Amino acid sequence: MMEIQHISRQYNQELEGVKNKVLKMGGLVESQVEKAISALIEQNNELAKEVAESDDKINKIEVEIDKKCAQLIAKRQPAAGDLRLIIAVIKVITDLERIGDEAEKIGRYTQKLTSIQDDTNMYAELFRLGEQVIAMLRDALDAFARMDVEQATKVAQTDRQIDQEFDRVSRILVTYMMENPRHIKTMLKVIWCARALERIGDHSQNICEYVVYFVNGQDIRHTGLE
Amino acid sequence: MMEIQHISRQYNQELEGVKNKVLKMGGLVESQVEKAISALIEQNNELAKEVAESDDKINKIEVEIDKKCAQLIAKRQPAAGDLRLIIAVIKVITDLERIGDEAEKIGRYTQKLTSIQDDTNMYAELFRLGEQVIAMLRDALDAFARMDVEQATKVAQTDRQIDQEFDRVSRILVTYMMENPRHIKTMLKVIWCARALERIGDHSQNICEYVVYFVNGQDIRHTGLE
Repeated sequence: MMEIQHISRQYNQELEGVKNKVLKMGGLVESQVEKAISALIEQNNELAKEVAESDDKINKIEVEIDKKCAQLIAKRQPAAGDLRLIIAVIKVITDLERIGDEAEKIGRYTQKLTSIQDDTNMYAELFRLGEQVIAMLRDALDAFARMDVEQATKVAQTDRQIDQEFDRVSRILVTYMMENPRHIKTMLKVIWCARALERIGDHSQNICEYVVYFVNGQDIRHTGLE
Repeated sequence: MMEIQHISRQYNQELEGVKNKVLKMGGLVESQVEKAISALIEQNNELAKEVAESDDKINKIEVEIDKKCAQLIAKRQPAAGDLRLIIAVIKVITDLERIGDEAEKIGRYTQKLTSIQDDTNMYAELFRLGEQVIAMLRDALDAFARMDVEQATKVAQTDRQIDQEFDRVSRILVTYMMENPRHIKTMLKVIWCARALERIGDHSQNICEYVVYFVNGQDIRHTGLE
């Protein structure tokens, strides 16, 4: 009896350990995205360089967590709920890794933008989009941490606002390009950054959807209000 | 003894079944990408509409395979190699689903492009990029089907050529935009399509990397040439 309790405690600790690793990875990714946005808005070349070069760390954590998940499955043979958690983890870290990629891209475009030394200051237009994306990512990670279906559903819906803001920014940038054709090349880099932000919104939405999908699968009786 | 053989045969059949489902999904995704490219190059509104509206089917298959994988793990408690195959499957179908998303986007942009009825014919510039992307996706799926590390490594490297072709197309489109600022809006849609194609290359590269990663993990002794 004591032995079973001991094994079960260890198992739960291992599951918690994986979840914590994901949250640690999430924190790192969030910080990368924040830095990428700051670098872009403030045209900070140093910070952009830092972001562009530190994606490796995130990739390594993804591989590490994948390995840990495989070990857990092989060793513990988890049943329904726990297994779904592990599969959710495997999916979520893929999205986190891709968010890291997008942050890296923003870093690289920002480095190019700072070297051009353009004075259009159009990247300032991305400020609100950046704020919205950071908030969405943070809330998605929070919903994952608490496996909160209600919050996940709510957060997933904010992606629509991000798409709208992206459209608004695009329109402004296109108008600017039409009036200043010689700045087209520069403006395209700004648009790519906006697109990268919009993608981070998509990935955050995916994270939310995995929370909903797996929690609902796990215990469908407690999720509906019917 | 007979019983064990029977169970083992059934298990192998189930594993093969999952792999075949992935290949079926891959075939469907490949056909969507082909249709999306044809619709774009030929400015075929009907075909574009078809592509833009049939992404649901791919999404459903992804959910179905995810479920089947979870069932297999719970029921069969697979060990190292088989488990890694299942995890590879879970990862690969995420990329396939995202490729479907990109095809859908191309379909939607093409619908808009055909409604504009522009006569710039710049989308013809995407022909080679489209050919390269289709070939890469096909080869990546083939490497997955045969779990061929050597081919997967080779295919993964072709992503560089796709990036170069994307850069070439971008330069042409930017030059055109600078000379014809009133076509900027239309050209941006063409660039988004090019970007979607370049993304499909990225996802194909991911598929190859999962093949390498999981096969190498499975039996590292037979992979190197040292």
